[in-house]
Amino acid sequence: MTPPETPRERRVGNGEANLLRRIAESAAKGNFGKSGLVVGMGDDAAVWRTSPGHDGILSCDWFLEGTHFLRDRHPADSIGWKCLARALSDVAAMGGVPRCFLLSLALPSSHTGRWLNEFLHGLRRASYKFKCVLAGGDTSRNRQILISVTVVGEARKSRAFLRSGARPGHALFTSGRLGEAEMGLRLLQKLRGRINSSDPPLHKHLYPEPRLDLGQWLAEKRLVSAMMDLSDGLSTDLPRLCAASGVGAHIYLEKLPAVQFPRWKRVTDEQILELALRGGDDYELLFAVPRQKVRRVPRSFQGIPLTLIGEITEARKCVLVDRHGTERALPNRGWDPFRGAK
Amino acid sequence: MTPPETPRERRVGNGEANLLRRIAESAAKGNFGKSGLVVGMGDDAAVWRTSPGHDGILSCDWFLEGTHFLRDRHPADSIGWKCLARALSDVAAMGGVPRCFLLSLALPSSHTGRWLNEFLHGLRRASYKFKCVLAGGDTSRNRQILISVTVVGEARKSRAFLRSGARPGHALFTSGRLGEAEMGLRLLQKLRGRINSSDPPLHKHLYPEPRLDLGQWLAEKRLVSAMMDLSDGLSTDLPRLCAASGVGAHIYLEKLPAVQFPRWKRVTDEQILELALRGGDDYELLFAVPRQKVRRVPRSFQGIPLTLIGEITEARKCVLVDRHGTERALPNRGWDPFRGAK
Repeated sequence: MTPPETPRERRVGNGEANLLRRIAESAAKGNFGKSGLVVGMGDDAAVWRTSPGHDGILSCDWFLEGTHFLRDRHPADSIGWKCLARALSDVAAMGGVPRCFLLSLALPSSHTGRWLNEFLHGLRRASYKFKCVLAGGDTSRNRQILISVTVVGEARKSRAFLRSGARPGHALFTSGRLGEAEMGLRLLQKLRGRINSSDPPLHKHLYPEPRLDLGQWLAEKRLVSAMMDLSDGLSTDLPRLCAASGVGAHIYLEKLPAVQFPRWKRVTDEQILELALRGGDDYELLFAVPRQKVRRVPRSFQGIPLTLIGEITEARKCVLVDRHGTERALPNRGWDPFRGAK
Repeated sequence: MTPPETPRERRVGNGEANLLRRIAESAAKGNFGKSGLVVGMGDDAAVWRTSPGHDGILSCDWFLEGTHFLRDRHPADSIGWKCLARALSDVAAMGGVPRCFLLSLALPSSHTGRWLNEFLHGLRRASYKFKCVLAGGDTSRNRQILISVTVVGEARKSRAFLRSGARPGHALFTSGRLGEAEMGLRLLQKLRGRINSSDPPLHKHLYPEPRLDLGQWLAEKRLVSAMMDLSDGLSTDLPRLCAASGVGAHIYLEKLPAVQFPRWKRVTDEQILELALRGGDDYELLFAVPRQKVRRVPRSFQGIPLTLIGEITEARKCVLVDRHGTERALPNRGWDPFRGAK
């Protein structure tokens, strides 16, 4: 995918100081007044100031070659975008505003030329788009490409959304369509040759957009009792929200906003359902809303559908309910690197 | 070093949720009232509140198998300790106080049993010792052991020490003895069989102590114009401080606090000097002090020697001066993963 690098690129790329300088230069172009950064790249640490009346939000995310992306299938530009976008999804899930991030990057020497340039291009675009400034980082040489991103955001004091506030009777919503990113991944694995990343499912897999505006809007309107982002698939993430809240949930199968296929594609309902339940990487928001506030949740937000998919129950189990009212247990089989099942 | 794991340990270790739970349980035992943590492990992100009148300090550090430690030579307990201790050295270098940290950990399935327990034991001891609470993290499965630590600290508003404040005429100091950790590493590489980690150079390599108290004391007394920690060796780190300040430096060779060897060890002066200049992992503090404040710097702090090793100059180069007044350029040859030279 990335063309082989020239000897000059390889030469230029050497030296950690050089690498840090290039990353820092790339970042400087994305500096924003409101980031809160007092000291950025280039010192022992970054110095960051929270806005008055706000708490800091901190989260870190692995993005590893072989586990989260494939060196020879994923464009470097997409890897740069996605490593930041997916980490920011955790800030969205708290209803927070992104401020700055730290980048830990380990590369083979062969990837410090053109590959790194494309990676930094994607990273910079995401940094601009989501108004999140590079505050610092660490680099190392490694055979396998390794990325770890720590994001720093803010939320109004004591107002960050947690997973633990869902109560029996609250309605369950999700944003967007579930399973699209997983479908994009499967498409990418099948494709030979050049990738058209504007193809919608492919685009959602390569360039996910954390639901930051939605999260902040829900925080402002105080509509939500519990929220999290869907990174590992509904069948894995919903039980996490329920466990944190000490509750269970009923999910209405017919209401799930699954991927839509043209009829000639001959995809079975069961396959679509599986994508919606088990597909990872969607970065949509899953949130619970007290009954009396349900009417205030719009059908869509900035063009993204918001769908009522179920209800929180007292019994601590997650149950799928079909249109005939038949119930079955939700199989917990989403993405888990330590089970290797997907 | 770490005994092979039993089938039960391997079984127990599976599952990312299980892994996160064990890490979280390990962390809970080290919770401190003053950490500023509002929400810790278990949600999408951590929520953290800065003390009034303070700025946040953020830094991240790789700790990678094969680059920063060896799986079959370094005890897991030391790896747990050191990954946090070395990251905290950046907080010490700003004169800051540690508050919390995020742990990104990727392990082979074979290492989620006894190895992980020992790792967490070392990590917990460091977390207690340096009063720094685990705030969150991410885990993944990977053939190579990968660790990235993000530390969060605080300093009084606009009082964090930077690298950029050194001016011509300022005196240069360093804490501790330089090259001890490097000597410990060489010892470790030679040793066969069981390691006695109480051996001083070995101990300094395996269980370094960030100079947090010293950094905070220097901040309180306002003695310092520029400071950084020595992680990659004086010959690499000093030019960084000088570049940030737009100055140069003279280092008096005879004053360097080098490692002391018993006479029968037959180590040449040149070898000792090389250790002091190029040895990495010391995590001592290098700091510049305005002339009129030099007398207020004690000879030692909490038993750690503080040594005047040179002077900041206007000419932007780093020069070694021997006892005869002969000058030579400081060879920049410390640790750089992208040069592979050490």
